[in-house]
Amino acid sequence: MAENQIKSLIQLLAKLPGLGPRSSRRAVLHLIKNQETLLFPLMRALEDAAQNITQCSVCGNIDTCDPCNVCKNPKREDAQICVVENVSDLWALERNPSFSGRFHVLGGTLSAIDGVGPEDLNIPALIRRAKKDIVIEIILATSATVDGQTTAHYIAERLIGSNVKISGLAHGVPVGGELDYLDEGTLSAALTARQPV
Amino acid sequence: MAENQIKSLIQLLAKLPGLGPRSSRRAVLHLIKNQETLLFPLMRALEDAAQNITQCSVCGNIDTCDPCNVCKNPKREDAQICVVENVSDLWALERNPSFSGRFHVLGGTLSAIDGVGPEDLNIPALIRRAKKDIVIEIILATSATVDGQTTAHYIAERLIGSNVKISGLAHGVPVGGELDYLDEGTLSAALTARQPV
Repeated sequence: MAENQIKSLIQLLAKLPGLGPRSSRRAVLHLIKNQETLLFPLMRALEDAAQNITQCSVCGNIDTCDPCNVCKNPKREDAQICVVENVSDLWALERNPSFSGRFHVLGGTLSAIDGVGPEDLNIPALIRRAKKDIVIEIILATSATVDGQTTAHYIAERLIGSNVKISGLAHGVPVGGELDYLDEGTLSAALTARQPV
Repeated sequence: MAENQIKSLIQLLAKLPGLGPRSSRRAVLHLIKNQETLLFPLMRALEDAAQNITQCSVCGNIDTCDPCNVCKNPKREDAQICVVENVSDLWALERNPSFSGRFHVLGGTLSAIDGVGPEDLNIPALIRRAKKDIVIEIILATSATVDGQTTAHYIAERLIGSNVKISGLAHGVPVGGELDYLDEGTLSAALTARQPV
């Protein structure tokens, strides 16, 4: 086995999600073999990221400016706020252009097991945003898991009395999905919410 | 989607083996969330690696010194040289302590399809090393693939006339392996090389 510096690099890379000790070793060898094209650029990109990336004080997104590019884009509608669990969910929704409103990133879900309460999430800022007159609809786009739905329910209760319309994502058969492989919950949700053709 | 600096970091990480665009996005979010414990240490480890890691001029291994720690370790036997394709193979053999000789890293295999000829590999240095009187045995530990075996065969031919004993790794049933799941080639190799109990 190689020297300490190589070992520590392998151990650090192995902490990334999706990489274990074995794939981290492969990645380090790949980095060392491709110093000019990969190791140096990656070093510089990490430095850039450390210096420039910050959290948006409005919505909780991650970007190189504050407010972030989604929040300061004048072409987006202020009337809709889409509430998501994590920045990765925001990115997933941004990858298709069907939503042109604003976002709000909670930073996780309520979870009794992990001890995450409402005060640990970015909820107070959401309540403040929802009270503004310009906001008409809050779309709760948390995951369709128990924790995600609990969180959505909690937020909906907190917003009772405010003037906004509250909606959630539709449940049903994924586009391209085969009925045969779907679980019962999804199938019964799709049946209940059936629509005239 | 986020700003350019985040995008370029995602694209760079996605070039590592084992990471695609999706897992790279997850890794970048993880890095940004854990700046103190992961992003900064990784930055420093990459800098260290870029500054200190070098290729051993004797065997082709990667280390922070030249000759590498395996080559300069006085406790290892000079009589045996184990020839491997890549540094990762050397590391794999070093992880179990059954071999205490020296190594020689070829840097790949002969491959007609990829246009890799003998002059592209670390073979001349091996021939020179094999001619030294202290060397008694060359163990060809290339992969049991067509390219690996072609390379081993080529090296064995080049070493004809020198005074060294040439050997290869044994083929057979992997320890812990079930016969049911083995391919025919391995099974017939294990049968042919059967040994008295």
